[in-house]
Amino acid sequence: MAVTDIVTGLEVHDVRFPTSDQLHGSDAMHPDPDYSAAYVVLRTADGPDGHGLCFTLGRGNDVMAAAIRALAPYVVGRPAPDTVGRLGALHRALTHDSQLRWLGPEKGVAQMAAGAVVNAAWDLAARRAGRPVWELLAGLSPEELVGLVDFRYLTDALTPTEALDLLRAAEPGRAGRTARLKAEGYPAYTTSPGWLGHDDATLVRLAEAAVADGFGQIKLKVGADLDDDLRRLRLARDAVGPDVRIAVDANQRWDVAEAVRWMTALAPYAPHWIEEPTSPDDVLGHAAVRAGQPVKVATGEHVANRVVFKQLLQAGAVDFVQLDAVRVAGVNDNLAILLLAAKYGVPVCPHAGGVGLCELVQHLAMFDYVAVSGSWEDRVIEYVDHLHEHFADPVVLARGRYRAPVAPGFSARMKPASLAAYRFPDGPVWRARGPRREAGVPA
Amino acid sequence: MAVTDIVTGLEVHDVRFPTSDQLHGSDAMHPDPDYSAAYVVLRTADGPDGHGLCFTLGRGNDVMAAAIRALAPYVVGRPAPDTVGRLGALHRALTHDSQLRWLGPEKGVAQMAAGAVVNAAWDLAARRAGRPVWELLAGLSPEELVGLVDFRYLTDALTPTEALDLLRAAEPGRAGRTARLKAEGYPAYTTSPGWLGHDDATLVRLAEAAVADGFGQIKLKVGADLDDDLRRLRLARDAVGPDVRIAVDANQRWDVAEAVRWMTALAPYAPHWIEEPTSPDDVLGHAAVRAGQPVKVATGEHVANRVVFKQLLQAGAVDFVQLDAVRVAGVNDNLAILLLAAKYGVPVCPHAGGVGLCELVQHLAMFDYVAVSGSWEDRVIEYVDHLHEHFADPVVLARGRYRAPVAPGFSARMKPASLAAYRFPDGPVWRARGPRREAGVPA
Repeated sequence: MAVTDIVTGLEVHDVRFPTSDQLHGSDAMHPDPDYSAAYVVLRTADGPDGHGLCFTLGRGNDVMAAAIRALAPYVVGRPAPDTVGRLGALHRALTHDSQLRWLGPEKGVAQMAAGAVVNAAWDLAARRAGRPVWELLAGLSPEELVGLVDFRYLTDALTPTEALDLLRAAEPGRAGRTARLKAEGYPAYTTSPGWLGHDDATLVRLAEAAVADGFGQIKLKVGADLDDDLRRLRLARDAVGPDVRIAVDANQRWDVAEAVRWMTALAPYAPHWIEEPTSPDDVLGHAAVRAGQPVKVATGEHVANRVVFKQLLQAGAVDFVQLDAVRVAGVNDNLAILLLAAKYGVPVCPHAGGVGLCELVQHLAMFDYVAVSGSWEDRVIEYVDHLHEHFADPVVLARGRYRAPVAPGFSARMKPASLAAYRFPDGPVWRARGPRREAGVPA
Repeated sequence: MAVTDIVTGLEVHDVRFPTSDQLHGSDAMHPDPDYSAAYVVLRTADGPDGHGLCFTLGRGNDVMAAAIRALAPYVVGRPAPDTVGRLGALHRALTHDSQLRWLGPEKGVAQMAAGAVVNAAWDLAARRAGRPVWELLAGLSPEELVGLVDFRYLTDALTPTEALDLLRAAEPGRAGRTARLKAEGYPAYTTSPGWLGHDDATLVRLAEAAVADGFGQIKLKVGADLDDDLRRLRLARDAVGPDVRIAVDANQRWDVAEAVRWMTALAPYAPHWIEEPTSPDDVLGHAAVRAGQPVKVATGEHVANRVVFKQLLQAGAVDFVQLDAVRVAGVNDNLAILLLAAKYGVPVCPHAGGVGLCELVQHLAMFDYVAVSGSWEDRVIEYVDHLHEHFADPVVLARGRYRAPVAPGFSARMKPASLAAYRFPDGPVWRARGPRREAGVPA
């Protein structure tokens, strides 16, 4: 019997892209992001290593890097997390350590750092199994999947037995859906036309391009100025025609009453959903916005953990659950969120974009289709055409759909040359931008 | 006219106390804390400097230190935050920076780091004004106080106009209450008898001592074992007699149904409140626990921000608001929370203990009494007799009440000798404990 492989090191890279140069990613709350990643590698002596990341907007990426480094004692020198049992134990250790949990509990920097390491462990496990993460997950038994979930604080909404029943009910269709997924790909929508920093001509050009590329849905950022939003919605509708859905996204800009007022004004243009109308912590606020105006409500990219998702579902506050691959503590937390959404019958339409988020989250949506909800009706994965060239196994879109990944792992492995070029603050890209941006000084 | 004084430096100290040696601070979720502080000093060239801190349980204190250091560009080289206008602007800059906010928003490590710096700025401002923080706050006009509050996401529960009305209504009584506070002190309760790591004899001895010291309320940790809790409650009741209140604290140990079941079993001993029955993020869960059993519900020390406090109040989920001086973004956030509690008529009973939390939070409770709620009925500040010897201006308790601080500042200034002795990992206290604890390796 082979000696168990041991994790020999945890490496962290602070990687930042100067996306604010062109206002890619600009919205009503984040006018000038520099898309960044705190990138982690779990090294082992004998087998493939595991890669993961946190996404940030630039300043603060060093804090995420420090938070990931603080987790090294929980993985280095321990057996490689390449089994279902070890992946569950690692998730529990990182999110419930009796001293570390004070930093959250289960939220913010600490939770995202745990997520980067948990996702790196899943990358490692999937590469060792020779399968993409979605397929590894979709091959686990209902019992194994339930064993990966932390049900603490969830049982008033979802018990392990209920979760098992859901997964068992989806089991017979797994093979058929896997075949269909591989043949057709998973539906996507694109946010690329709609950044707030784009002028009208760019918006129209990119909206037309989205339709030509086969997307059935686009998304516009809103919330800075109502007249601008009305004009941009009209332009977008003219560009895409009557049959393509247009979602809008306020990025937490409003209080409850303002969200209701603003969306009542935009409602004649029939937006498919209003995303992040207010604070991501405000369960009751989302419920009030949903009740107060006719447009469906979506949120999730900033929802801190499975306990807040639970409440959004219990309160009937959302029509779409927009989980994010790296905001919570990785695959295990997202498995809980997928199960909660399935229990309440609410479709999951994952958040993506940023750095590597499309690469990661496609696995979760595809697993959901094959083995949890068993459906892609009303479900779409966000797509943004940024920064994919830095990944070794980038997403592949065809006719507005994500192709199912075939390479082993979690698809978020960055090219070594990109890690070196965009290293902050001393990589050549930042050196060339001068000391002020290098120092991360706010305006 | 004097040239404006500039902040010349931001220093951070990682200070840890090996409290797990004696199981001080042990509870159902945190069996072995090493009470720690990420301690910050804002240096200026000409005037008094400002000191603040975050509290942690040991591991992860380095992450907090990194998060505070990341805020240096927002204060260093800028005017000393010694006016109401600058204190409001600093709070907004640290909590709403368009890149940094991705780390929260407004929660966890990022929010606590902002709190340490905001509180250090209040220490600086109060020292320059020659007054303790409570008295500085209680001398501000209603308009100035409202100007310090970030009302974003709060207006469905509390508008600036309503806040102004509350503060104006309390204005006529300020002088009388200030005099009474100085004469009598503010009511306290003590948690020192009730740590879960104490044996029965220690519990009884410390409970009797609490009564002898004049406390009208003690608190016991519960939630690990129901039979133990029943026995300990009986022992404590015998020790303190029928007239002293006994609160209990589960430190987030339970799911909703378990909290209801457990507290139904403890209810015959008439606990004054059940604190943290479940996840601090679970607004709906707290409401269900409150509705499901007869004991009053308290929470707050882990509530991430003013938006979650808002919902706890809107949902009728809590009987007591236990704000913490350092969990949220400092005085400004806590001013919002005090106003929300006053609007809903719910008493604020602050969390304290840890490192310096008693020192800091007394100012907020006293300000609440003088200028916001105008009452100390049903209100008590937690007291724990740990680590006060390390502070230059420690709390003073007399007959179970906090004496009003008289020294200028926020009372959380640590002695230089303590900062040096307990520095992690290379201070003499940690050197003496050997490399394993020094490295912060989990068990």
